[in-house]
Amino acid sequence: MTVLACDLGGTRMKIGLVRDGHVLAQTTKPAKSKAGLAAALPALKSAWLRQLNKLGIAVSDCGGIAVAFPSLVDLKSGRLRAGYGKYGDAAQVDLSAWARREFKLPLAVENDARMALTGEWKHGAGRGSNNLVMMTLGTGLGTAAVIEGHLLRGPHGQAGVLGGHLTVNYRGRDCTCGNLGCAEAEASTVVLCDLAARLPEWDSSALRQCATLNYAVVFKHADAGDPCALKLREHSLRVWGAMAVNLIHAYDPETVILGGGIMAAQEVILPAVKEYIHRCAHTPWGRVQVVPGQLGDAAALLAAEWLLSEQQGVLR
Amino acid sequence: MTVLACDLGGTRMKIGLVRDGHVLAQTTKPAKSKAGLAAALPALKSAWLRQLNKLGIAVSDCGGIAVAFPSLVDLKSGRLRAGYGKYGDAAQVDLSAWARREFKLPLAVENDARMALTGEWKHGAGRGSNNLVMMTLGTGLGTAAVIEGHLLRGPHGQAGVLGGHLTVNYRGRDCTCGNLGCAEAEASTVVLCDLAARLPEWDSSALRQCATLNYAVVFKHADAGDPCALKLREHSLRVWGAMAVNLIHAYDPETVILGGGIMAAQEVILPAVKEYIHRCAHTPWGRVQVVPGQLGDAAALLAAEWLLSEQQGVLR
Repeated sequence: MTVLACDLGGTRMKIGLVRDGHVLAQTTKPAKSKAGLAAALPALKSAWLRQLNKLGIAVSDCGGIAVAFPSLVDLKSGRLRAGYGKYGDAAQVDLSAWARREFKLPLAVENDARMALTGEWKHGAGRGSNNLVMMTLGTGLGTAAVIEGHLLRGPHGQAGVLGGHLTVNYRGRDCTCGNLGCAEAEASTVVLCDLAARLPEWDSSALRQCATLNYAVVFKHADAGDPCALKLREHSLRVWGAMAVNLIHAYDPETVILGGGIMAAQEVILPAVKEYIHRCAHTPWGRVQVVPGQLGDAAALLAAEWLLSEQQGVLR
Repeated sequence: MTVLACDLGGTRMKIGLVRDGHVLAQTTKPAKSKAGLAAALPALKSAWLRQLNKLGIAVSDCGGIAVAFPSLVDLKSGRLRAGYGKYGDAAQVDLSAWARREFKLPLAVENDARMALTGEWKHGAGRGSNNLVMMTLGTGLGTAAVIEGHLLRGPHGQAGVLGGHLTVNYRGRDCTCGNLGCAEAEASTVVLCDLAARLPEWDSSALRQCATLNYAVVFKHADAGDPCALKLREHSLRVWGAMAVNLIHAYDPETVILGGGIMAAQEVILPAVKEYIHRCAHTPWGRVQVVPGQLGDAAALLAAEWLLSEQQGVLR
C-alpha cells in the first residue's frame, strides 16, 4: 500500500509517496517554519493530493501517513515538543486528528534524524548492519542511533537524537538547548556567522562580501586559500570529528553514516571525519566504517513504511 | 542458591557470597592488579572457600560465579579485553575454564560499572526505574546505562560504559584511550597530580606536603581554603557536571546515580552535579533525579545473581 510521507525541515518540506521501499513521487516546498505547523498543513495536503492524482492512486487505497519532524517527539502521545524556533505551534497541533479528518488515514510521527537513519538502515547505506549511528549535518546537527537492531528512543524520545548536544567543550559557547559547548553551538550553520565574526582573519576575509554565509561558501573560499575560511573549515571538521567519536563511544556502532546538506562537500568532510575517528575513537574490536548516506533527501521518506507498521498499534 | 561474586577493582578486590539479593559474606583484598589476573586467582579462590566454610555452605550447593571486571568484556566469547594497566594478562586468562576446573561452576563476567549499575537497579537506588545512568567516580570514571529496561551493551560491549571517555574538551588533554579531552583525562584521580602541578597555585599549596594526592585530600584542603585545592575542586565538579549532562543527552534517563569512592565527599559532589544538570541538561519533559548509590562496595556483587541467570545459557 502507498504511504504519504513528509520530512518537515526547518527550511524545506520534502513531500512524497512511498511504496515497497521506493519513492513513487517526491517534491520539495519551502517550509516557512516560522509561520508555524498549522499554517503549513494545507500546502502539504495539496502536494500529496497532486502526487496521488498524477499517479492515479486513491487516498482510500493508501495505508497511512508518516511525518518526520525536526524536534523531539513524545511517542506515547504522538505529540510534538516545542520546535526550537521552527513550527512554534507544534505542541498544540494534533497531527493525528488532522490526518483522520483530512484523509481518514492513520498517522505516525518521529524525529527527523531518527527517520533519516531508519531510511538508510532499511534501504540505504546502513543495510545489513544492526549497529549504526548517523550524523546529519544540516542547519543544526542531527543524530540517531540503532543499537543491536533497536532504534534508540528512550522514555522521552531523547535517546540518540541529541548527539549534536553532547558537550565537546565544557568551557564553550551557550547553546540554544541550555547547555554549554554542544557540538551544535561550537560548529554548525546556526552559529557560523558568529564564529566567523570572532576570528581576527574576518576583517580582511573574502567571506565578508558573500550575501549569505554557509558551509558551501566557507568550503569554496577555503579551497581558494582565504585564511578565515580555512580556519572555520579546520575548526568545524575538528568539532565534527570529536562529535563522531562521542557517538561511537556512547553507542558502540559498527558504522557511522554522514548525511545532511553540508555533505555536498563530502570530499572534504568524509576523509577528515574518518581520519579523526581512526585516530581518536577507542575501538579495540576493530575499525568503525565511516560512509556517506546514500538516500539524500529521500532518507526520512523511505522510513515511512517501517514507522507506520511499527506504530499503527499506538496511533491508529 | 548461593552465588560466588567478585568485583575486581584496580586496587581492591571485593569478594562475597550473595543469595536472594542479600550479601551473606563480604571481604576486601588488595588486588595487586599490576601482577596480573592469573596471579590474583588463588587469593580469590581461598577467600571464597573461607567464606563458604564459615557459613557451612558446600561449593556443590552454589549456583555459579559472577565476576565484575574493570575493563571491556566481550560477552560473546566471555573473554576480557586488555586491562589498561590493570590485569595486563586478562585477555589470555580463560576465567570460565578456571571456574569449571576449580569449582565445577558456571561463570559470568561483565564490566564492573555495568554490574554496579545493575546492582543499584535491582536492589538499590535505581529500584522502580527502567531508565538509569550511573557515574562511578573511582580511580577512573566508570559509567553504565539502562534504557527502557534494557542494560545497554552494544555489539562490542562498549555501549554505556565509555561515558568517562566522551569528549568534554575537544582541545583537551591526551587520554589513555587514544581520544582527546575525555572527562577522565580532564578530571579524575588518574590525572589529579598532573592537573595540580600545572596550576600556578601549586607551588605554594599545602597539597605539596601530602604523601598522596587524591580527591579526599583535595576536598579537605579546599574546605580549609587552599587556593590550589579550591581550583581543582571547582574544575573537577564542572567536568563531572558536563559529563553527567552528556550521559543525560546520550541516554535519556530519568535518574542519574552517582557512586564510587570519591562519593565519600557526596555532600560536595551531589549538590554541585545536581545544580549543573538542572542548569544545563535539556529535558523538556521534566527533571532528572540525581541520587547517590545506596549499595557502596556491594553494588556490583549484588548484580551477581541477575547476571548469572541472564548469561548461563551463553556461558555454561
